[in-house]
Amino acid sequence: MMHRIDIISVQPKLMESPLNHSIVQRAKDKGIVEIVLHDLKQYGLGKYKQVDDTVYGGGAGMVIRCEPVFDCINALKSERKYDEIIYMCPDGEVYNQRTANQLSLKQNIIILCGHYKGIDQRIRDEIITKEISIGDYVLSGGELAAVVVADSICRLIPGVISDEESALTDSFQDGLLAPPVYTRPADYKGLKVPEVLQSGHFAKIAEWRENQALKITEERRPDLLE
Amino acid sequence: MMHRIDIISVQPKLMESPLNHSIVQRAKDKGIVEIVLHDLKQYGLGKYKQVDDTVYGGGAGMVIRCEPVFDCINALKSERKYDEIIYMCPDGEVYNQRTANQLSLKQNIIILCGHYKGIDQRIRDEIITKEISIGDYVLSGGELAAVVVADSICRLIPGVISDEESALTDSFQDGLLAPPVYTRPADYKGLKVPEVLQSGHFAKIAEWRENQALKITEERRPDLLE
Repeated sequence: MMHRIDIISVQPKLMESPLNHSIVQRAKDKGIVEIVLHDLKQYGLGKYKQVDDTVYGGGAGMVIRCEPVFDCINALKSERKYDEIIYMCPDGEVYNQRTANQLSLKQNIIILCGHYKGIDQRIRDEIITKEISIGDYVLSGGELAAVVVADSICRLIPGVISDEESALTDSFQDGLLAPPVYTRPADYKGLKVPEVLQSGHFAKIAEWRENQALKITEERRPDLLE
Repeated sequence: MMHRIDIISVQPKLMESPLNHSIVQRAKDKGIVEIVLHDLKQYGLGKYKQVDDTVYGGGAGMVIRCEPVFDCINALKSERKYDEIIYMCPDGEVYNQRTANQLSLKQNIIILCGHYKGIDQRIRDEIITKEISIGDYVLSGGELAAVVVADSICRLIPGVISDEESALTDSFQDGLLAPPVYTRPADYKGLKVPEVLQSGHFAKIAEWRENQALKITEERRPDLLE
């Protein structure tokens, strides 16, 4: 199954370098994922391709208008069926690995990036199927959040990461944080790698890792164990 | 005060377009923030500039070695004083707007991006002062997370956003999610803007917004009200 992610934004160029590197680029190169950027300004109004306007009721900041967004999304929907139309916003459902897993199973998704003060509420009420926040902080736009979602999804699609075990032993996949990792040299200016990891006893190493993962999760993120 | 953010990564090019657009670019243009990307490979070992190696104790994935990281960070520390040396990782402290506010007050910070399976634990134990996760999901590297942190910090530094009120009425700054926003037209294909926002009664509008913010926060994120 070929996956497709359409990202709609007023600043598509902002996303170019992250989408042309790393896992996302690999997913595209392998023909597993297609990511298409859409410049909302192409659907702007009038000679100046206006996409935003002042806030109703007064206040600072600009709001993205209904017309360009509905026109852009409806044009995409006329070409194929979409499983989700996602709006990236600070008041969306908080993104986590479970949602990433779910989205990695979808074939076609649209991601709409907020910008300025946000988008007209009628867009959210009428056409958006899922609202996602990548965390409790404010960004200048939804573009970085969209790229975060794209990256986290791409690496979960089978065939993208060459060594699938690597993704499965990441933090969160088993509900625990990952244990510490070490590499050569065994002694770096007096700082040493734990002996058990150099022992070659795989059962002991597995036990140490499990204990460490549990200990770190208890210390740092007891909420994950609830 | 001129702010400086040094970002260390094995894939610095991945971050170029987000750092050359939007708020971050504006902060740089105004001479308020300087962001310097460092390619960890410049500090790599031997002819092939090796920066990573296999995991001690066996298992999938590569780990970033001590030498290039210590060398790069120590070189920076010899040039100026740093307030924080941050490592972006899924098991760090969960990033939020309060941490963004705190970091926006710091003058010089280093952000080290993890990649592959992570970095040698001795780096974390010895030289990192703060570990940050942007959320409970796994990314292919810390680069996107570093850009998220840089963006969220830059927009809080006075003088970066032209209309400061705009940042202060964002979600999270007052502990609540932001109320819905609307813009023209008042009637889009039968979808209407709430009458109160067209009333011109600023006290009523303020009351409506406060009630909406509270209602949305109660519905979507009751944890923020605890």
